[in-house]
Amino acid sequence: MMMMDDEIENGRSGYPRTFTAVRSKSYSPLIFRILRRINPRLLAIFLFVIFCGVFYVGARTSPIIVFVFSICIISFFFSVYLTKWVLAKDEGPPEMSQISDAIRDGAEGFFRTQYGTISKMAFLLALVILVIYLFRTSTPQQEAAGIGRFTSAFITVAAFLLGALCSGMAGYVGMWVSVRANVRVSSAARRSAREALQIAVRAGGFSAIIVVGMAVFGVAILYATFYYWLEVDTPGSMRVTDLPLLLVGYGFGASFVALFAQLGGGIYTKAADVGADLVGKVEQGIPEDDPRNPAVIADLVGDNVGDCAARGADLFESIAAEIISAMILGGTMAQKCKIEDPSGFILFPLVVHSFDLVVSSVGILSIRGTRDPGTLGVLEDPMTILQKGYYITIVLAVVTFGLSTRWLLYTEQAPSAWLNFALCGLVGIITAYAFVCITQYYTDYKYEPVKTLALASSTGHGTNIIAGVALGLESTGLPVLVISVAIVSAYWLGQSSGLVDESGNPTGGLFGTAVATMGMLSTAAYVLTMDMFGPIADNAGGIVEMSQQPESVREITDLLDAVGNTTKATTKGFAIGSAALASFLLFSAYMDEVSSFARVPFEQVDIAVPEVFVGGLLGSMLIFVFSAWACSAVGRTAQEVVNEVRRQFIERPGIMFYKEKPDYSRCVAIVASASLREMIKPGALAIISPIVIGIIFRILGNITNQPLLGAKVVASMLMFATVAGILMALFLNTSGGAWDNAKKYIETGALGGKGSDCHKAAITGDTVGDPFKDTAGPSIHVLIKMLATITLVMAPVFL
Amino acid sequence: MMMMDDEIENGRSGYPRTFTAVRSKSYSPLIFRILRRINPRLLAIFLFVIFCGVFYVGARTSPIIVFVFSICIISFFFSVYLTKWVLAKDEGPPEMSQISDAIRDGAEGFFRTQYGTISKMAFLLALVILVIYLFRTSTPQQEAAGIGRFTSAFITVAAFLLGALCSGMAGYVGMWVSVRANVRVSSAARRSAREALQIAVRAGGFSAIIVVGMAVFGVAILYATFYYWLEVDTPGSMRVTDLPLLLVGYGFGASFVALFAQLGGGIYTKAADVGADLVGKVEQGIPEDDPRNPAVIADLVGDNVGDCAARGADLFESIAAEIISAMILGGTMAQKCKIEDPSGFILFPLVVHSFDLVVSSVGILSIRGTRDPGTLGVLEDPMTILQKGYYITIVLAVVTFGLSTRWLLYTEQAPSAWLNFALCGLVGIITAYAFVCITQYYTDYKYEPVKTLALASSTGHGTNIIAGVALGLESTGLPVLVISVAIVSAYWLGQSSGLVDESGNPTGGLFGTAVATMGMLSTAAYVLTMDMFGPIADNAGGIVEMSQQPESVREITDLLDAVGNTTKATTKGFAIGSAALASFLLFSAYMDEVSSFARVPFEQVDIAVPEVFVGGLLGSMLIFVFSAWACSAVGRTAQEVVNEVRRQFIERPGIMFYKEKPDYSRCVAIVASASLREMIKPGALAIISPIVIGIIFRILGNITNQPLLGAKVVASMLMFATVAGILMALFLNTSGGAWDNAKKYIETGALGGKGSDCHKAAITGDTVGDPFKDTAGPSIHVLIKMLATITLVMAPVFL
Repeated sequence: MMMMDDEIENGRSGYPRTFTAVRSKSYSPLIFRILRRINPRLLAIFLFVIFCGVFYVGARTSPIIVFVFSICIISFFFSVYLTKWVLAKDEGPPEMSQISDAIRDGAEGFFRTQYGTISKMAFLLALVILVIYLFRTSTPQQEAAGIGRFTSAFITVAAFLLGALCSGMAGYVGMWVSVRANVRVSSAARRSAREALQIAVRAGGFSAIIVVGMAVFGVAILYATFYYWLEVDTPGSMRVTDLPLLLVGYGFGASFVALFAQLGGGIYTKAADVGADLVGKVEQGIPEDDPRNPAVIADLVGDNVGDCAARGADLFESIAAEIISAMILGGTMAQKCKIEDPSGFILFPLVVHSFDLVVSSVGILSIRGTRDPGTLGVLEDPMTILQKGYYITIVLAVVTFGLSTRWLLYTEQAPSAWLNFALCGLVGIITAYAFVCITQYYTDYKYEPVKTLALASSTGHGTNIIAGVALGLESTGLPVLVISVAIVSAYWLGQSSGLVDESGNPTGGLFGTAVATMGMLSTAAYVLTMDMFGPIADNAGGIVEMSQQPESVREITDLLDAVGNTTKATTKGFAIGSAALASFLLFSAYMDEVSSFARVPFEQVDIAVPEVFVGGLLGSMLIFVFSAWACSAVGRTAQEVVNEVRRQFIERPGIMFYKEKPDYSRCVAIVASASLREMIKPGALAIISPIVIGIIFRILGNITNQPLLGAKVVASMLMFATVAGILMALFLNTSGGAWDNAKKYIETGALGGKGSDCHKAAITGDTVGDPFKDTAGPSIHVLIKMLATITLVMAPVFL
Repeated sequence: MMMMDDEIENGRSGYPRTFTAVRSKSYSPLIFRILRRINPRLLAIFLFVIFCGVFYVGARTSPIIVFVFSICIISFFFSVYLTKWVLAKDEGPPEMSQISDAIRDGAEGFFRTQYGTISKMAFLLALVILVIYLFRTSTPQQEAAGIGRFTSAFITVAAFLLGALCSGMAGYVGMWVSVRANVRVSSAARRSAREALQIAVRAGGFSAIIVVGMAVFGVAILYATFYYWLEVDTPGSMRVTDLPLLLVGYGFGASFVALFAQLGGGIYTKAADVGADLVGKVEQGIPEDDPRNPAVIADLVGDNVGDCAARGADLFESIAAEIISAMILGGTMAQKCKIEDPSGFILFPLVVHSFDLVVSSVGILSIRGTRDPGTLGVLEDPMTILQKGYYITIVLAVVTFGLSTRWLLYTEQAPSAWLNFALCGLVGIITAYAFVCITQYYTDYKYEPVKTLALASSTGHGTNIIAGVALGLESTGLPVLVISVAIVSAYWLGQSSGLVDESGNPTGGLFGTAVATMGMLSTAAYVLTMDMFGPIADNAGGIVEMSQQPESVREITDLLDAVGNTTKATTKGFAIGSAALASFLLFSAYMDEVSSFARVPFEQVDIAVPEVFVGGLLGSMLIFVFSAWACSAVGRTAQEVVNEVRRQFIERPGIMFYKEKPDYSRCVAIVASASLREMIKPGALAIISPIVIGIIFRILGNITNQPLLGAKVVASMLMFATVAGILMALFLNTSGGAWDNAKKYIETGALGGKGSDCHKAAITGDTVGDPFKDTAGPSIHVLIKMLATITLVMAPVFL
């Protein structure tokens, strides 16, 4: 801060080269720095040896694991290719790269501090888990396998830490590429719209592939290691069908980091955005990303730490949690049906996501920009190009999904079961597509709802907000109907697959819903690419605006930004849909886990029992209070930004006439420290409350002689929280997206256009929508999965 | 409308004498008109004969019924005294009574049209119920009692229609007194604050006594008639413990009418209020209730039809539903425990509410205004006076509750059971008090939350809305904790009461929660009085403002209005708390009912079954979509009002200078027709969806061979909807109340005071809060109970 003031006093002009108050040289995490110091040739040999070891372990486990490893490694090389391709693009003129450097410094500085805090909390939690597992009872399966308490504690803690590390890396990768791609997209926008689009897509594709690949590779490597180490399936040791339960720590670690990454990043990005908009757009009437706005760099930093880093961690944990829960259910079912080789059912999710990497890569490559004859003009709507890629990916996913079911789920006991499961997968894919369409209907201004919302703005701020809230609440209807049909139909397809247990009862139902979830996520890498594309385009637009490029360049990035808004909204629909299905799986896995520990069947959660009903009440309340704290954190931080920006405008009146330079770094510092402070309270609520509720009702159950009361209450809490979470997230995401696009619709000139009273009311709506759609909403996605994984890991405490 | 224009053109000045567009002569429902035509002496004899008949039937049933009848009749005479006292007050100068006449005409006109529509729908539904009951199977109890299908259908339909009629009358009475008391309060405010307070309280007390008395009397008379007619407890006929199940139709009829009354009235009052505020306060900067605002009469009419009529119907159905469900549970328990004389357990709720009438009457009478030495000055804070009355009522309620438990719940099988149940009642009373305190903390500007909200307004409209939404979401936390503790502790007090069934299992748990609910509602009449006080004071303030009385008079009504806002908010907390408990009872009653019909035990609702989980998802979604439709109805109607008011200001520029008279009746007509149109969609959703879901899953259950699937899914839907409804209602009520009071706080001069930007932002929040707290929120109270009663009545369809 002081240095910045000095620079201004010394009469230096132009943009600040670096943000000294935050930090000035490029930062990379410790692990990368260590790797970088090693001789490259030595490193290559070292890596090769590790790979050989991994492959050896994989080959000893199952040929399926070898297949998964191979695809992951090929994808890794593909992502390296994408990075090299993106980084080979020019960074544009110095005024662009200076802004980009400032954004990068801000983002990396925040990332380092944030993940420092998160890692401390993760180690603390690991210690707690260790202690709990050392004092818990073991399951009959573990005893049969000769796994002692110490081994089991070590396995869980190691898996937790690996999950947390991978989740953090997923976030870092997302941010790493976005802070580098943004300026390259800006630069390319000066030449060609399609080239800019292609860079943004490939940069997004890079982190999508890494995120999905790491989730698959992490689970596969843990599975293979445990298989090899515990000598699974040899006499006197563990059965392979019980193995997936050991992986739950990985999912929990991933959710834990993702929750804080999403909360911290979400608060950062929206506090900066809201603060910047409230003073800049509403009070001073200057455009978005105007260099005169002191909060503009903080806003651009926010896109990277909030949308890119957080969404990377979010999708990583979604996929990890969903893979693990499906593996658990596959194992349970294979065991019940006495299937001879259960590994196909257990490893099915890994194969589906390996194919996901392949088909999404094809989808990403299908978006080509080089045939563009070099003009600035836009040849095609970017949305159409992205959707073409999505269609290619979906068609390929249907084909590969069918192949995987035939390969892995064919069993002579029920020869047509694989076909039923293939249909379950199709149900999932259709559900994903339906979610995307419904979200688009409610958030795109081509359709009625947003147009009505825009019209409501013409009668003032109040009616705009009422209409937006009503739109968001209403938009929960269709997705819930779709997910209801999906759950029931996938369950019944599974149930009628012909797989039966010893007493002849059909048992495939839950696995059917698991397969539907996999189907839904079978294009996850491509969807994540589209999602990552948004903030990169948004940032590129910011850099173009700040470096005061010609209007034609801004038009191209604006177009990309608008498309990015739509893809962001639709992928949120996709994310909450898959979270809903995944939570239902994790819930079943939890019941299996409790059964194992308690050594009594745990198959019912009866909400007619008052305590269980109360658990549900508390679970739903948790979602409301969590959303409240996430929103109010943004509101409070935004108020600090507003006051700071107002102060700067008053103290430095020259800013408005480009005569004085605003103090960007002060805003960055305010937002960074506030969002780190504010992420703790909702995060702690999410982690502590299920544990506390479980323990209280466990004690109450002991007193009143109700066995398993703690576990039942937690189960009910989980289910009610999932339901409330789905609805709340849909409400928050959709209303936020709709407000944003209603504003954009008015900016196209409708209802008075920019600067009219109607536009001002629409900006209020947009401001309210910001924490809804980018802080609270996406945090709930993570929250409902984290609740499921935390109850899985903490199950022994509730018994 | 045309006539109004003519009047202006003819140069007549002053306020319109009547609202010719709506109607011009005082309206009273058909039943009153018929009664009025009969010779008074003949009528008195006729009534006396009826009373004797009723008493005879009551005496044949149980001495408890005689006690209840006596109290109800005494209360009726007490309410007549209160009316006479209120009506004896003067109506003030002609300019006041003219405005009051206009309000009364508008309110009565709307009431007539609205209840016309509702009664048509009620008859249609009665027909549907009749058909269903004629084709359903009967329960073993009914067969044993020799009750055929036709009798059972007749009983249900008759109870439904009586419940609907009484609910409608409760609404009418609430409105009838408020449109007469408002002007008397205005007139008294010219003389003395305490006299004005006393008139408002006694007017509110009149309708509270009538509403509670009618609920008790209606149930008691139905019970006695069925008892006498069906020769209950004689050999070969029905057992008395099965009798309460025949009363569910009454509860459903009451909820049905209350839902539409609340929806229609809520939309009316808030559309008018929002529309008036948006143009008047925000755009033109004129004060609330300013005669220049064309929407002001519509706003004042709204207070009567929305707050008074609708709240009367709402509380009526709350009490009726809660009495019936508690009677059903009491009967079931008495039968399980083989208690010799079960009538004490069954009739306990009626006695509690009879005592409620007595203690609340004392509370109402304790508010005296005559000792006021006639000065205009305010001697005491009205809130303190009202709270003193509340404390008196609570203390008396605790005493009478204890007496009732000892009288009716003492049984030799478990000599200390009555003490446990008395403690359950205490739990309920404490819960009610806690709810009132929590609501006050979150909505009163004496405390931190509203102050923070007001501060958030200083950074703009956006941060105000974010902070308000966050406050509302957060405010669900404490009430849920309180209700959770209440449910669990009341259940365990009941369970440990010593009452055991044949096999020695404790069975008193559910009845314990029922007693807690009764405890919570044991001061209902006084709470309703405080609630009714609010809109009467509000209306009085409007009349004072419109008739341009001196500032000192306005100050008194402003003070009463502010107190009314707080009591309104706190009674909403009370209402949702009791609705939560009552729904849990109705849920248990539903399970009993299904068991009887299906002839198999129905004791579990297992949410681990996918279909049952889906039912929960759909139930929660129902609440979100219902709230959406209620809010958007207000938004849409308010936009029509805004456009109309803007049009009038443009076309008649003289309005602002008092030179032209606004066309009030046009606004009244717009709001009335719009709110009737808009109430249908959410109301139909609430009624049709449980039936449709039940039937679909019944068919699915038949196909997939899952017995009782329809009933289970509906049960889960009901529970999830109740939970989501409690949270949503708390969120909507509290955020709305907080926004309102944040605005009031700023108007006291804080943060820039009236007219500042901060105040404008706060008005936006207030506008958004209007449909939240007065349309959607209170409708949800009714909705969750209506869902419970509709499933009870429709249970045969789901099997």
